[in-house]
Amino acid sequence: MRIIGIDPGTAICGYSVLDYIGNKFTLLDYGVVTTPANSDLEKRLYTIYQELKELIEKHQPQFLAVEELFFNTNAKTALSVGHARGVILLLGAMMGLEVFSYTPLQVKQSVVGYGRAEKKQIQEMVKLILNMEKIPKPDDAADAIAVAICHGHSYKLNRNIKEMR
Amino acid sequence: MRIIGIDPGTAICGYSVLDYIGNKFTLLDYGVVTTPANSDLEKRLYTIYQELKELIEKHQPQFLAVEELFFNTNAKTALSVGHARGVILLLGAMMGLEVFSYTPLQVKQSVVGYGRAEKKQIQEMVKLILNMEKIPKPDDAADAIAVAICHGHSYKLNRNIKEMR
Repeated sequence: MRIIGIDPGTAICGYSVLDYIGNKFTLLDYGVVTTPANSDLEKRLYTIYQELKELIEKHQPQFLAVEELFFNTNAKTALSVGHARGVILLLGAMMGLEVFSYTPLQVKQSVVGYGRAEKKQIQEMVKLILNMEKIPKPDDAADAIAVAICHGHSYKLNRNIKEMR
Repeated sequence: MRIIGIDPGTAICGYSVLDYIGNKFTLLDYGVVTTPANSDLEKRLYTIYQELKELIEKHQPQFLAVEELFFNTNAKTALSVGHARGVILLLGAMMGLEVFSYTPLQVKQSVVGYGRAEKKQIQEMVKLILNMEKIPKPDDAADAIAVAICHGHSYKLNRNIKEMR
């Protein structure tokens, strides 16, 4: 299966595209979409929309995995990330992808094995899983890879459980 | 000038389309887009996108006026409204509209004359300004009309101030 993973944000939005075949992940693409702080919010959202749409058209993933927000963050942050997240979910529906959301806890558990892992540990595991020479940069791109790995693991796990019934 | 006013929400999203020519507002359309609670969030956002896009194509407004959020709301509400608001702002940029945001305080001051007005007073003023026989229903549609009126007033005021300089 092919997964696009996204770490939503208005200023910087991480993305990754992975194949997960057998037990092996292959990284096809990763990076960030950045938008200028002095630009109007609607124009920043439109930039995110256009760049991610192009990426989906290019790689044709079946699944979109996106980070869910902490609810213990403040309302201002929640609103700002919410704007970007709304655009990303819309894109998923519009392009016919299956959309899955994962909390930071789920991502950590899935990638590192326990929910209180630190950022650095997640990034080391991402590097290991994907056989990369260095930790992927910037952090937002690494987070986007982690959420895609989380979806690969979770989806397979859920399917196996279903088949065992 | 023609204005589309929007009161953003994921479950219910109010809209209005008004002409403001001379000192007179004319209401062309108003209502709500509702989405089923049992539907996936991305599908709900896509429904909002599609219905509002159709409305913009039909009426060709130049301006989009949208309510800004209270920041004293909780993070969960902020995130939920943020999703819908992101889609609406995106639509504005995508369709080439000029986008303006107004706080509830600004809307009240502009429509009723003071910032602590109650919902009922705003609705009565909306009815009066638009020469309607009844208060527009539901509340979300009335709010969408109010934010469009606010934009008409504010935009004209700012233009006059500029001309006076």
